[in-house]
Amino acid sequence: MNPDKSDISKKNIKWHEISIDRRKLEKMHGHKGMVLWFTGLSGSGKSTLANALNEALHLRGISTYVLDGDNIRHGLCKDLGFSDSDREENIRRIGEVANLFMNAGIVAITAFVSPFKVDRDKVRSIIGNNDFVEIYCAANLSVCEKRDTKGLYKKARLGEIKEFTGISSPYEIPENPEITIDTGNIGLKDSVQEIINYLDKRFDIEK
Amino acid sequence: MNPDKSDISKKNIKWHEISIDRRKLEKMHGHKGMVLWFTGLSGSGKSTLANALNEALHLRGISTYVLDGDNIRHGLCKDLGFSDSDREENIRRIGEVANLFMNAGIVAITAFVSPFKVDRDKVRSIIGNNDFVEIYCAANLSVCEKRDTKGLYKKARLGEIKEFTGISSPYEIPENPEITIDTGNIGLKDSVQEIINYLDKRFDIEK
Repeated sequence: MNPDKSDISKKNIKWHEISIDRRKLEKMHGHKGMVLWFTGLSGSGKSTLANALNEALHLRGISTYVLDGDNIRHGLCKDLGFSDSDREENIRRIGEVANLFMNAGIVAITAFVSPFKVDRDKVRSIIGNNDFVEIYCAANLSVCEKRDTKGLYKKARLGEIKEFTGISSPYEIPENPEITIDTGNIGLKDSVQEIINYLDKRFDIEK
Repeated sequence: MNPDKSDISKKNIKWHEISIDRRKLEKMHGHKGMVLWFTGLSGSGKSTLANALNEALHLRGISTYVLDGDNIRHGLCKDLGFSDSDREENIRRIGEVANLFMNAGIVAITAFVSPFKVDRDKVRSIIGNNDFVEIYCAANLSVCEKRDTKGLYKKARLGEIKEFTGISSPYEIPENPEITIDTGNIGLKDSVQEIINYLDKRFDIEK
């Protein structure tokens, strides 16, 4: 409803029919909102692949946003540590924020280890199966540890980091992810293309 | 950087220069990201005005999203109650999420009572003065209580709701809000226009 066409009197500003809902926002952006959820060990290439995918989608005019450690742990979740309950809450909040972006008609891309199935499944239930794409970056531990891009595995082996996923805390491999990328063996360009192909086929996301 | 132009080898997927940053996202959306923060008593017209403004901005092709009680209290903040510390954390999280939307190049619109100056100022410091527009809906208590659109004032007077802003808990009037709308006396259409005029003048948001 256009404000100019409203019959709102000066004394009564109730006007609850107005709603720019998800459908309208998706129409404006030219594609559906959804959540692309990357999961995998530290060093498995989640962030790199998420950002490369983001670049590729952006170049196609798709409205995207990447949620990752940089913008979440220093802001929304800066009150959380790394206890089991804090990690669970961290993933829950990220899922809720991704849901808001999706409802805004945006393609939300997340890149977090998210090692536990129960937490990922909780996010899936928040988002809904129709809009959730779990992308497993399947590089194995030896590859990730050899890369050790941030030096974290070394510290974990020395006991300087406790409960490090893959070393002293489990990573639960996704049982039925929508996409599995063998990031230990497949290059970035091919990995991006594989995801794009999936999205085109399932959602007809091409603009 | 286009993935096709990358020199990423199969065995090394480090590629940290990729970045679709705020500037690129704003360019894509055709306007800057910002946060429009409505504050005021329950019944002062925050949600109504926020939604009417959202409609007007949407019709001008601006990418927006409204954060309000409906999509926040049932999701991201459903673990929070109404104690002082929970209310503070509620507003903090909303500020952080609004900041993410702003960084995604979106005009984030929030509609919460947010009665305490310290909490609103904390949000202002998260967002930054250049991108934050505090909009005070200044209908006075008697007007809001007479409207009592949700029947909350009646319950508060009966003591059925504790610490209700304006009745049993203070509302701290903003000292220097960017915009004050006299929602007790000005109609919806004029209120929307006043905000649009401000945004056009300050940000040249017209597309």
